[in-house]
Amino acid sequence: MLTVLKLGGSVITHKDEPETVDEESLAKTCEVIASFLAQEESEQNSGRRHQLVLVHGGGSFGHHHASGHGVTSTEGTEDAQVLTAIHRAMGRLNDVVLDALHDQGVPALPVRPLSMARRDKAGLSFPADQFEAMLSEGFVPVTHGDVVVDTDVGGTVLSGDDIVVSLAESLAADRVGLCSTVPGVLDESGAVVPAIDSYEEVASILGESESTDVTGGMAHKIRQLLQLDVPASVFDIDSLERFLQDERAGTVVRG
Amino acid sequence: MLTVLKLGGSVITHKDEPETVDEESLAKTCEVIASFLAQEESEQNSGRRHQLVLVHGGGSFGHHHASGHGVTSTEGTEDAQVLTAIHRAMGRLNDVVLDALHDQGVPALPVRPLSMARRDKAGLSFPADQFEAMLSEGFVPVTHGDVVVDTDVGGTVLSGDDIVVSLAESLAADRVGLCSTVPGVLDESGAVVPAIDSYEEVASILGESESTDVTGGMAHKIRQLLQLDVPASVFDIDSLERFLQDERAGTVVRG
Repeated sequence: MLTVLKLGGSVITHKDEPETVDEESLAKTCEVIASFLAQEESEQNSGRRHQLVLVHGGGSFGHHHASGHGVTSTEGTEDAQVLTAIHRAMGRLNDVVLDALHDQGVPALPVRPLSMARRDKAGLSFPADQFEAMLSEGFVPVTHGDVVVDTDVGGTVLSGDDIVVSLAESLAADRVGLCSTVPGVLDESGAVVPAIDSYEEVASILGESESTDVTGGMAHKIRQLLQLDVPASVFDIDSLERFLQDERAGTVVRG
Repeated sequence: MLTVLKLGGSVITHKDEPETVDEESLAKTCEVIASFLAQEESEQNSGRRHQLVLVHGGGSFGHHHASGHGVTSTEGTEDAQVLTAIHRAMGRLNDVVLDALHDQGVPALPVRPLSMARRDKAGLSFPADQFEAMLSEGFVPVTHGDVVVDTDVGGTVLSGDDIVVSLAESLAADRVGLCSTVPGVLDESGAVVPAIDSYEEVASILGESESTDVTGGMAHKIRQLLQLDVPASVFDIDSLERFLQDERAGTVVRG
């Protein structure tokens, strides 16, 4: 069973202060992941084996640098020094995440998008071979939002959400989880919507919501997740363990 | 015209002290590269355009970490923390090289092998797509010796020399240069052999030479270069400019 799990930038960093890690939240997250992987390993004899791919957002590492230089997912730059600066900031966060995972015994290895992904007019090219090779050796690949080379515009920002969608498809993941700071998609009364089967069901809620901006635009996220062949759950850190144990967590998006 | 240029670890670091950069030599190297690229750009109107891919070795960054953990190109480890430590050491050197190139105005971007290359029984898989995308946007990709995932053994060391050979083939490079601390392949009297067309010509020199170990095993290097379709030159930093200007530099290996 293969899980693609996104850790939102807001879960592992303090978004308001440049390059500050939310150590407590990160440690808790890694603890939950480690105990999930340990538990599954002991069940291997029953033929069940868990594989995990982690994707993390930029939080206060990537966004500050990217917005400071005016680089977005559509506005590019040809300045190699600027692209390198954004990439390095994300690398510093990636290092911290890897350290926290290693501390818990998770065999995590980095995959840096600038080194292997690119965009052109046909769309995103995000090869999954490297992830497959790492998974087959028992490693946990950890990738992240980054800058990538973008034909005719130099380099642009590639979001963690776009990576999740691409990897879920190309790796034929069994399930997708997006762990952010909101407990799910919220209805008008602030209650978590348990499941979404079509965009129409939630258009009235998501169309105007500003409060969900913290997760990178919930409306766009839901539209993307609805296109996947597998269920995707949107939840917060309190529900991470339930998600990993295959219990209902937050909002389930069924495409 | 596409050049693949390898900067030996001994050219840009002090090999005897862990993680020390040879600032002077690195700066000189980057200056020569920058002035070559600048010169060629002004000649673009004549239809001639230069593209450059840089590969650097590990020097006192990679080798210390790798040998300290007993990881070689054949002896692997499944320890993600060890692989990450070696990878990070190479990343620190790669950062220094990128900074030095940026200082000279070279639009350099990193490509980290652990993120995009892998090995299995069939051999090395080192996709060139990322390099092509960077080159077509006018960037100078800078990659390096690293650790890579290796089927059934976890992770092993991938040498910069192996990368050079792979990239020269897959990018259909016009020429290859290996800049190290020796002025070329030396004959019994210590003179530079101007050209090598077959291994038999130099077997007697290379078979027993210990003095060329500093470049990572000259015999193995020459065997690899002889298999290329394009000429490869082996030279030292004093001949780098001549090599880039397409003048004779060091020893030319014609496969």
